[in-house]
Amino acid sequence: MNSISLKRAFEALGQMDDILILAHANPDGDAVGSMFALYLALRGMGKRVRCEIRDVPENLRFIVREEAFADFPPRYIVTVDTGDKKLLNASFTDKYGDHVALNIDHHGTNGFFADETLVDPTAAAACEVLFDLFTFAGIEITKEIAICLYVGISTDTGCFRYANTTAKTLRAAACLLETGIDNGAVNTDIFETKTPQFVAFERAAMNALRLCLGGKCAVLRIPQQMYKDAGIKEADTQGVNGLPRMIAGVYAGVTVKERENGVYHASVRTKEPINAAAICEKFGGGGHKYAAGCELGKDGEAAEAQLVAAVEEALKAAGLLNG
Amino acid sequence: MNSISLKRAFEALGQMDDILILAHANPDGDAVGSMFALYLALRGMGKRVRCEIRDVPENLRFIVREEAFADFPPRYIVTVDTGDKKLLNASFTDKYGDHVALNIDHHGTNGFFADETLVDPTAAAACEVLFDLFTFAGIEITKEIAICLYVGISTDTGCFRYANTTAKTLRAAACLLETGIDNGAVNTDIFETKTPQFVAFERAAMNALRLCLGGKCAVLRIPQQMYKDAGIKEADTQGVNGLPRMIAGVYAGVTVKERENGVYHASVRTKEPINAAAICEKFGGGGHKYAAGCELGKDGEAAEAQLVAAVEEALKAAGLLNG
Repeated sequence: MNSISLKRAFEALGQMDDILILAHANPDGDAVGSMFALYLALRGMGKRVRCEIRDVPENLRFIVREEAFADFPPRYIVTVDTGDKKLLNASFTDKYGDHVALNIDHHGTNGFFADETLVDPTAAAACEVLFDLFTFAGIEITKEIAICLYVGISTDTGCFRYANTTAKTLRAAACLLETGIDNGAVNTDIFETKTPQFVAFERAAMNALRLCLGGKCAVLRIPQQMYKDAGIKEADTQGVNGLPRMIAGVYAGVTVKERENGVYHASVRTKEPINAAAICEKFGGGGHKYAAGCELGKDGEAAEAQLVAAVEEALKAAGLLNG
Repeated sequence: MNSISLKRAFEALGQMDDILILAHANPDGDAVGSMFALYLALRGMGKRVRCEIRDVPENLRFIVREEAFADFPPRYIVTVDTGDKKLLNASFTDKYGDHVALNIDHHGTNGFFADETLVDPTAAAACEVLFDLFTFAGIEITKEIAICLYVGISTDTGCFRYANTTAKTLRAAACLLETGIDNGAVNTDIFETKTPQFVAFERAAMNALRLCLGGKCAVLRIPQQMYKDAGIKEADTQGVNGLPRMIAGVYAGVTVKERENGVYHASVRTKEPINAAAICEKFGGGGHKYAAGCELGKDGEAAEAQLVAAVEEALKAAGLLNG
């Protein structure tokens, strides 16, 4: 399957009305940002639009539009930043998963589950795809839209740190800044602010961090109890996913988190030449070359062991670990 | 005093030869990056050039050019990223401070100590000023030069997080990426890699962090012993300067570090509306609106109290603290 063109995506949106926008579960900045950027743009086009989203992290609430939570039966469903229908909230997958008219995404592992898919794996964020779409279509990027797009691009690139940041990404961000958004304040809130709860959680996480495979893999397992002890919600702890890969010498950083339903979810961050998406695909997940995720079942210890075995295999295949 | 133009700066450099480049003491990425970017550009112009620099942080060594440490009597001295001659290493201040032909800088508090000064306070980094100069002058920005400029811009903006990042900054960075530099790997090394020593140091720093002034000011005092306990050099701990400001509710984060000679140095990071440079100027220091520094004498406790008093005054003046 192939991506449709920007032209076709704009045509398709033009033909729709009574639109429901969804994004992946456990939303990050790109999920929330692309949802509300598209919401505002479609509203500007005179469409009736609504959004459904759960568990928005506290520090992303400022881009949520309360008026988007209307209630009408949707005629068209559009998903954003969603590589697979299984990545929607389970109840949304059942209810809407097979009826998505258009999916706007940037994941190389996109499963083409929608009727039409606009996907650009070279884009750092779904918000970068939306920037391209709006620019192509001559949709005015207001300051309100720009904040949403900026949040999506900055969070998916670790504020322009990660390898997915291209010259095109930076130029898109430059255009967004020119609408007058206060990027310093936005970044301070998202990247530079730690609640006392997060500081306590981070300290516990640093103590739980363990090295394995000769220091080339670092694993952080987070049981539900760790959230409870720090008095924090899982949604507000995404910042720790980057911790394991930060240790000097580590090629694969694995964060294994217990969900409320007892199922473990893994976030894998890697460095060249280790492919995170390839590791997670073995467990039915997916993502990008250096950042991916998958579900692992209810046995935390077994889940961790399986994933470490997959990392070991990848390190050996890359000649970084002796067979 | 006013800045000279890009045209005049290029003319001035064109007339020089046997050039010595210096940057401020305790060099950060912008000091090291602007030094070696200028070194490479002047070499490309056929000039004899050398550099003198001390205490380069471990993670910035990859942009240092060993061949730049030649030994010849300089006819011209050029400084980069240096707002005041006192900010050079003390021995350089004495030897060269009154003989600087050209200073290329971006600090709003620049003291115009050189014969001629190219300073742009709207630039996020001295490396952004150099990018403008090279672009204006048609000097080819090779991949080697681009890496130096990118390191300077990314470190002085916290990898494009801080409020000093403008649309122009992002477009300059976009051009640098197009030379083929591996921005992901560079950023991973600079921003995302923690040695076990740094992890130990960071844990100690988090424990030493204290809130005051009703939670609106956070102070981190680092005695020499803290470096010794963690087995780390001060030059490799600049990452902690941002810690105090990160606590939610904090307007001024103060890091007070004991130097090897027993003198305390303060780094002040603030949030709108608190002006860090204004606070540090009271102690003879300077810098930018949200990030500045100053020397404080040998009594750590008194130094800290003085600075907290200055922060208190600023908070009261801004109506954030009751008189």
